[in-house]
Amino acid sequence: MGDALLHVPAETLRRQIEMILSTWGMMAETVAPTAEVMVETDLRGVDSHGIAMLPLYAQLRRAGKIAMRPEIAVVRESAVTALLDGGGGLGHAPSVQAMALAVEKAQASGLAAVTVRNSNHFGAAGAYALRAAQAGLIGMAMTNAGSRAIVPTRAREPVFGTNPIAFAAPAGNNEPFVLDMATSTVAIGKVKLAVYNHRQMPDGWVVDDQGRDVNDPTAAFDGHGRMKEEYGVTPLGGLPRLSSHKGYGLAAMVEILCSMLPGTPFIGALADRAQHETGHFFLALQPDAFREPGAFAAELDAMIDHLRALTPAEADLPVLVAGDPERAAEVERRQSGVPLPEILVRSLREMCNQDGAPFLLDNAAGP
Amino acid sequence: MGDALLHVPAETLRRQIEMILSTWGMMAETVAPTAEVMVETDLRGVDSHGIAMLPLYAQLRRAGKIAMRPEIAVVRESAVTALLDGGGGLGHAPSVQAMALAVEKAQASGLAAVTVRNSNHFGAAGAYALRAAQAGLIGMAMTNAGSRAIVPTRAREPVFGTNPIAFAAPAGNNEPFVLDMATSTVAIGKVKLAVYNHRQMPDGWVVDDQGRDVNDPTAAFDGHGRMKEEYGVTPLGGLPRLSSHKGYGLAAMVEILCSMLPGTPFIGALADRAQHETGHFFLALQPDAFREPGAFAAELDAMIDHLRALTPAEADLPVLVAGDPERAAEVERRQSGVPLPEILVRSLREMCNQDGAPFLLDNAAGP
Repeated sequence: MGDALLHVPAETLRRQIEMILSTWGMMAETVAPTAEVMVETDLRGVDSHGIAMLPLYAQLRRAGKIAMRPEIAVVRESAVTALLDGGGGLGHAPSVQAMALAVEKAQASGLAAVTVRNSNHFGAAGAYALRAAQAGLIGMAMTNAGSRAIVPTRAREPVFGTNPIAFAAPAGNNEPFVLDMATSTVAIGKVKLAVYNHRQMPDGWVVDDQGRDVNDPTAAFDGHGRMKEEYGVTPLGGLPRLSSHKGYGLAAMVEILCSMLPGTPFIGALADRAQHETGHFFLALQPDAFREPGAFAAELDAMIDHLRALTPAEADLPVLVAGDPERAAEVERRQSGVPLPEILVRSLREMCNQDGAPFLLDNAAGP
Repeated sequence: MGDALLHVPAETLRRQIEMILSTWGMMAETVAPTAEVMVETDLRGVDSHGIAMLPLYAQLRRAGKIAMRPEIAVVRESAVTALLDGGGGLGHAPSVQAMALAVEKAQASGLAAVTVRNSNHFGAAGAYALRAAQAGLIGMAMTNAGSRAIVPTRAREPVFGTNPIAFAAPAGNNEPFVLDMATSTVAIGKVKLAVYNHRQMPDGWVVDDQGRDVNDPTAAFDGHGRMKEEYGVTPLGGLPRLSSHKGYGLAAMVEILCSMLPGTPFIGALADRAQHETGHFFLALQPDAFREPGAFAAELDAMIDHLRALTPAEADLPVLVAGDPERAAEVERRQSGVPLPEILVRSLREMCNQDGAPFLLDNAAGP
């Protein structure tokens, strides 16, 4: 964004997040997993879903939309399923618990699904799928996003959030395969970036209330960095002729698994466009329930190696495997720290002043 | 295709398919479910995956690539998982069995996953997901397709088949939600249709061995209706700027669940481009494991009703819900029969003559 970057060591980032969350009144057992997921997300280069979310969380807290002392409870449970209630707090802590429960059940039974209702933003879906893979299981994580953004194919108005799907699978010699994708063509953050960079958008990113493609990104935002009511992003595919109905179908699938299945209100029908309660869906699957131990990981290694060895169309743009960019970011950031743009650091400083939390990022530069 | 259409009643279609399969030596217990799935697929308007597949199946049979008397066996099984071996035959019969097993296990335990290895083309993935929904469960069905078609983002050559994902969920007053989508931007059949109709293709459908968009569909096919080695279709998204890496990630996810998980060779690394053994993945999930009975279906109804009531961007193109076009086709075709293009009828007649099966479609017109 043409902004100066402050490089912050992961440990400092974690302490800063923990201090802010604690000042907000969150309990220690909720603060720890929340900060852990957020720092992990920043380390993996998913800048939009880590510490950069704190200003929004602060707004939601002030608006009374997020409980700071949520009671997270298992509402229903069987050997292979569970429903958790997030108690109206941030989504990270119940999601860490939900995926841990799915993993534990799948380790015992081969397969498990756990849903969460009455929750909120949970950060990056990939963080939870990855946890399953780190335990040797296949993992899936989905959430219905709490702000309407995706305009169904042929419609004029946004109905679904960007409803992400994450899928991770454990390899042998390679790091896990980790797919983490919004079911929209692009994230709202990418549209904002086009504003900052004074770039036009291609057809297939954003549509207006007539369903027409919008190329000027500034037209789509109000003065507060929010997308205007009458604009929305397209489902994956982007254009009807490139099968955007498939992305629309995937967004609806995520809504079904995260809204109807746990019992979270369908955001498409609620009065406000933004910041609704969300629900989540987690699945864990033990490959050894189907294969001899080790066979799955070895064959996934072969596929990953095959993909990485493909001749690229352009020599300087190698063929990637899902999870590669995030892993590269993590290696680099564990060395040199997490780069935070000055505008975010300023906003965090203001937040700390306002809420009475110590501000740790002033002299944080360096690894 | 500018071709005359013969309208064939479903019952005639079923008998025709059964006679051909029986003539090929398939056992009655395999013939029945295979024909059933094929006719259902034709009734639902998925013309590319029903009886139109028979000429290809005939080729594969002559090439010795499909076992006509397969032994379908449950190789591994637990309360919530199973692995079936398809015995090298067509995929329909083991897939009907696998989804029935998943449904039975999920009805008992809340959730189940069943995979199939050593199988072949199974028709339309949606047929199996729909079976779960008809039993009151959420269903997923995937297969890795046996012919390389999808070129990974940034690559020059096809690696994955069109690797479809189907997802179905039972509603209350509405028919089930049924998403059935290839993870490519368009199916190969749609590219062939552009050849027949002398239409140019938009950027984002087909790429050549330099990764460049191809607009002339005739360039991509050899004289036998097969896509040339050096061409392939794009992953969903179509273009890198419209996030085709997401479709690539989904295609890889399907490969992992259908190749590595059951233990089917990864087609990307095999010598020939076409017609390899495939594997399948089926999941069934009981909504009542998470919700009060009826709550899930009622809320899914509300979402479906909301989507159908959206104001369309163009008045004559209503907003659809996944499964709507297939259902409309089924209502129409149960009335007026399944329309078969003359070129397909000719090819089926030849096949019957060659293989010694009675040909029933000559005077089949009418419902």
